Amino acid sequence: MAKVTFFPGKKTVEISEGTTLLETAIAAGIQLESTCGGRGTCGKCKVQVEPGKLDSHKDYGNKFLSESEKEEGWVLACKVQVQEDLTVQVKDQQKDAHRRKTGLDQSIDVEVNPSVEKHFLQLSRPTVADQTPDWDRLVAALPNQATLFNRRIAVNLPNVFRDANFQVTATVAGDSLLAVEGGDTTQRSYGLAIDIGTTTTVVYLMDLNSGKAVDSDAVTNPQRVFGADVLSRITYASKGPEQLKQLQTLVIEGLNKIIEGLCKNNQIRREEIYQAVVVGNTTMSHLFLGIDPTCLGPAPFIPVFRQSVQVEALELGLNILETGHVVVVPNVAGYVGADTVAVMIAAKVDQLPGYTLAVDIGTNGEIILAGGKRILTCSTAAGPAFEGAEIKYGMRAADGAIERVKITDDVELAVIGNTKPIGICGSGLIDAIAQMAEAGVIYESGRIVNVPEDLAKLPPKIQERIRQGEGGFEFVIAWGKDSGSGEDVVLTQKDIRELQLAKGAILAGIKILMKEMGIGLEHLDRVLLAGAFGNYISKESALQIGLLPDVPVEQIKAIGNAAGNGAKMVLLSKEERKKAVALAGLSEHLELSTRSDFQDEFIDALAFER
Amino acid sequence: MAKVTFFPGKKTVEISEGTTLLETAIAAGIQLESTCGGRGTCGKCKVQVEPGKLDSHKDYGNKFLSESEKEEGWVLACKVQVQEDLTVQVKDQQKDAHRRKTGLDQSIDVEVNPSVEKHFLQLSRPTVADQTPDWDRLVAALPNQATLFNRRIAVNLPNVFRDANFQVTATVAGDSLLAVEGGDTTQRSYGLAIDIGTTTTVVYLMDLNSGKAVDSDAVTNPQRVFGADVLSRITYASKGPEQLKQLQTLVIEGLNKIIEGLCKNNQIRREEIYQAVVVGNTTMSHLFLGIDPTCLGPAPFIPVFRQSVQVEALELGLNILETGHVVVVPNVAGYVGADTVAVMIAAKVDQLPGYTLAVDIGTNGEIILAGGKRILTCSTAAGPAFEGAEIKYGMRAADGAIERVKITDDVELAVIGNTKPIGICGSGLIDAIAQMAEAGVIYESGRIVNVPEDLAKLPPKIQERIRQGEGGFEFVIAWGKDSGSGEDVVLTQKDIRELQLAKGAILAGIKILMKEMGIGLEHLDRVLLAGAFGNYISKESALQIGLLPDVPVEQIKAIGNAAGNGAKMVLLSKEERKKAVALAGLSEHLELSTRSDFQDEFIDALAFER
Repeated sequence: MAKVTFFPGKKTVEISEGTTLLETAIAAGIQLESTCGGRGTCGKCKVQVEPGKLDSHKDYGNKFLSESEKEEGWVLACKVQVQEDLTVQVKDQQKDAHRRKTGLDQSIDVEVNPSVEKHFLQLSRPTVADQTPDWDRLVAALPNQATLFNRRIAVNLPNVFRDANFQVTATVAGDSLLAVEGGDTTQRSYGLAIDIGTTTTVVYLMDLNSGKAVDSDAVTNPQRVFGADVLSRITYASKGPEQLKQLQTLVIEGLNKIIEGLCKNNQIRREEIYQAVVVGNTTMSHLFLGIDPTCLGPAPFIPVFRQSVQVEALELGLNILETGHVVVVPNVAGYVGADTVAVMIAAKVDQLPGYTLAVDIGTNGEIILAGGKRILTCSTAAGPAFEGAEIKYGMRAADGAIERVKITDDVELAVIGNTKPIGICGSGLIDAIAQMAEAGVIYESGRIVNVPEDLAKLPPKIQERIRQGEGGFEFVIAWGKDSGSGEDVVLTQKDIRELQLAKGAILAGIKILMKEMGIGLEHLDRVLLAGAFGNYISKESALQIGLLPDVPVEQIKAIGNAAGNGAKMVLLSKEERKKAVALAGLSEHLELSTRSDFQDEFIDALAFER
Repeated sequence: MAKVTFFPGKKTVEISEGTTLLETAIAAGIQLESTCGGRGTCGKCKVQVEPGKLDSHKDYGNKFLSESEKEEGWVLACKVQVQEDLTVQVKDQQKDAHRRKTGLDQSIDVEVNPSVEKHFLQLSRPTVADQTPDWDRLVAALPNQATLFNRRIAVNLPNVFRDANFQVTATVAGDSLLAVEGGDTTQRSYGLAIDIGTTTTVVYLMDLNSGKAVDSDAVTNPQRVFGADVLSRITYASKGPEQLKQLQTLVIEGLNKIIEGLCKNNQIRREEIYQAVVVGNTTMSHLFLGIDPTCLGPAPFIPVFRQSVQVEALELGLNILETGHVVVVPNVAGYVGADTVAVMIAAKVDQLPGYTLAVDIGTNGEIILAGGKRILTCSTAAGPAFEGAEIKYGMRAADGAIERVKITDDVELAVIGNTKPIGICGSGLIDAIAQMAEAGVIYESGRIVNVPEDLAKLPPKIQERIRQGEGGFEFVIAWGKDSGSGEDVVLTQKDIRELQLAKGAILAGIKILMKEMGIGLEHLDRVLLAGAFGNYISKESALQIGLLPDVPVEQIKAIGNAAGNGAKMVLLSKEERKKAVALAGLSEHLELSTRSDFQDEFIDALAFER
């Protein structure tokens, strides 16, 4: 066994020799950035090890490390196998990863009528002439006489009744009894809307009386250490029941931490949270419920379930009321999940006139085309490029991330937090590449300009930024002298290829859906961009790079965290909950991998042209 | 802390000083006989402590101990507070407590059609053209398309399907899926019928295909250490959630031990037991489910629930299939429980012509009067006298128990196990007192004959047996020279009073029901005796002492362990399960304590006259 201590925070764990530092960090509950699942290919899990402890001849991810980093003891945590006691310094850049709003102040359009209802009951006392059992006495006073027996609540019912002099508040949802509390507690009724993203998990604490969001919080999905994309998670989960359980535990413990904080900050007891509505992609739904997602990985991409699932909070270990309900919104298919159904709910796609295209660009890209009483869906392997993964200097939308790029005589940047840039986030990446295409830094094909006569057409300061890197040409977005790290922040040819593949897949998916629906560009009434990403993206840049079909820019509308909003609406309204089931059932899923026309559309969509 | 070691078996536990030896035995999992709940009044928890360890001036239950016992270090375990390490010898008389049959070979009249059904399914493999989720694929092949989602089964479904090449057996019950197993397992399907008596718990392992009992076993209800009657258990449970939980755990662990043995002896895996049907009185049903029975204790005797309850085995920790169902048969009222409903089922009281009286004499006495499309029930505080508690030499129907008594010139005995007598069981007690009444050893009032002229009428050997004891007169049933312990086995005046109160309560209850039904003795078509007790009782003696109304002896019929048989029938037949709910609902419960006429009937019923 060896002891490893992590700074800042001074967390110490004991692990067996041979464990990687990345695994050790996971064991210590420390969130290292890692998007490749410890394969040594993303270069993000950099940590600093005390000098002299490691064999300097070994490769600890050298290609991702500058000379100065190597000298200072920086290594990739996934490349280090611990052999003796170590002290490790973790980069502290994660702190404000969720600077951006979680959508607390986003208004949602829903009539508040939640399935969770509280009833204050003034019951008569039993007598020898009226020996009605406590449970029957309760149910007789409820609107729903078919309320199901709940052993866990029955266990202590006599005390609750008699301590409160038979004046109690019953909380019900459909034919379930969730709680019986002494006195009149109808004024306090809370629920959670939970959006489990592959990258980020957001929790909204909702007041079920007012329908208002009381508070919200977000964390990086702790499963991220096993890879940035769903496939890495599926691969890990498929190793066995323990690994599956580990992934489930990670996400639930992450949620429990948030819930604890939300309760504390808002002086709410966990027992006052009666329901949690959960959305996420199909893999996240499976992992959240601890259900084996293995068959989602390879074709034919078979989920275990598709329907809405309701379980007691206790069964999952989610720290709301133990007998409270956790409701997982239904999925459409293996790669079109509850989050997409929630987007349909939030966008009210069933009520909008004409044809609506809705695109949710997260770690995966899900596309909805609704109109003519049909809903078509598909998903594309957009890859996590838009979230900064697989991009050399990619990072999440945190302080130091370049979020806007303009190329004129030189490069102008907007950086989150108004600090020096250290990397680039999704919206910055799209901006950068759109501007590079427009300025002639890249060809239509995506290749970085390198023919002298083409280079010569560029402003001198732009020319200087194009150079030969290790893996081909690269474009310097920010010089080391101006950057937070002192390193040049560059976009490599490979980065551009990653973006190209992602945007090409999305556009091709959109075109296939339009073809299936039998409509052309002129029929599209609106393009809705869901996801936090949609809020920050430049619509013009998205059109410029061909991420979206070539509609007038005013038809494009960002609708914010629609998945989270949809979850809130399902929580707040019985009707929306029913509608989620109906919309999921109505949706026709197109499996792009089976379509012979997809490859054509995909290749067509790779180019940078409008 | 002090260490206490119990022999035989050499079990050692550590406990805090001041703990009683009875509590210590409970902690060690040792079943001491105790029927007063540790109050020092039953005198049954005798153990032998190594010499010199206890203060010889203290009273460790002296009135229950002979001089020789005191010298040998015998004490009542409940009277000893442990102060230092001790070695304790426990009487080994418990071993064969359940020598009598548990009803394995009793035939039941039921058409086998259990709610648990197995379906062998040959499913098609998914393809990209048929991406139906595993769960939907399964449900589509089941007879019931409304089968509910079960997360626990879904967790591992992909493996089960693919390991078995999509040839699986689904086990369902109503709209629940209980299990999915690879291959065709339809030939193996088992269930348990469980009868939780206040004194004895019996488990029948049933083959759900054939409807036959494969095996059965019984144990003393481990809760018995907290008192022989339900009131002692209620009192203990009402002390707090921990005590309630303790009682629940005791009964469930007891059942789990039986289940383990039944599985092992019959080469059945616990996962092949898909359902358990449980009957017991209302208190036992509450404790089994861990539901607070406090309000059953004092008037107005309010149960928490009355209906049939179904929970997953996992929730209770009962070691059958985790997702299997535990079905608790409905109760009628606070003191007429599921066991009485099971008696109605087994006796088919709804189908018999005319009027049927059914009496279940266990630790409590429940009475059913059915006829004219009505079912009346009541319960009487029969007390545990018939099971040997509160009777000085009372014992259960185990080896050494006097089970038949005949008084001629002298006393003739039949003893279970053909050994020397050490005590008397319920049937022996009724026989003895009936014979004493008939022979003139007791007056009609129940008083032991002591007036010289009355004594003189008795045969000389009988006269010798009447003597002054510590608490009044007593009658020697077996002389020490003939007994197993060397002690005289006597019936005391108090013992006779106990029996009088018990039989008086039952007869009064019967009379109240008949009055309520508006029928006389001449209308009664049959008297059914339920319970193991009914099998062994002498009908003539029962009539002699006035335990039953004065019908012709041929109208009295023992129907064996009718509660257990009813449980088997509910397990084996959907229709019987429905009928149990219907009969419980139809039953009209008479609360005797509210009836002004009960006291009159009771006092009338105390005398020994026909």
